[in-house]
Amino acid sequence: MSKAVFYHAGCPVCLDAEQVLVTYLDSSKIEPEIVHLGTDRERIAEAEKAGVKSVPALVIDDNVYHINYGASLEDVKG
Amino acid sequence: MSKAVFYHAGCPVCLDAEQVLVTYLDSSKIEPEIVHLGTDRERIAEAEKAGVKSVPALVIDDNVYHINYGASLEDVKG
Repeated sequence: MSKAVFYHAGCPVCLDAEQVLVTYLDSSKIEPEIVHLGTDRERIAEAEKAGVKSVPALVIDDNVYHINYGASLEDVKG
Repeated sequence: MSKAVFYHAGCPVCLDAEQVLVTYLDSSKIEPEIVHLGTDRERIAEAEKAGVKSVPALVIDDNVYHINYGASLEDVKG
């Protein structure tokens, strides 16, 4: 099964994308994980390594999908 | 059932997003439609009205998700 990691930072754009998009992923084909980089700060490096430039972003296998624009990863790092 | 309209224009970023993301949508919850604005040019106005600014974009109900960036809608209009 593929894994989808949804990285966000609690921003309104992030929460909207999470609620709508993650809801519609097929749980028989893909296992979604939601990562809040504002609280799970030790995972920022992992997101960066995966190619995430801004949040919200969905990483499926090796593919990064930046969905709309909430904040840059630099802003999340603070 | 909700409807997801995936607007694209044949660009590499579009095709990648289509193959990976649309594949993982739950077909029991959402009915995906793929619209190629390069060939279905009469649907450009519909995409614009829905709020699409660039392709690829996924419109689910009233929500527009711009996924990465292939081309602006202005470029698609030519």
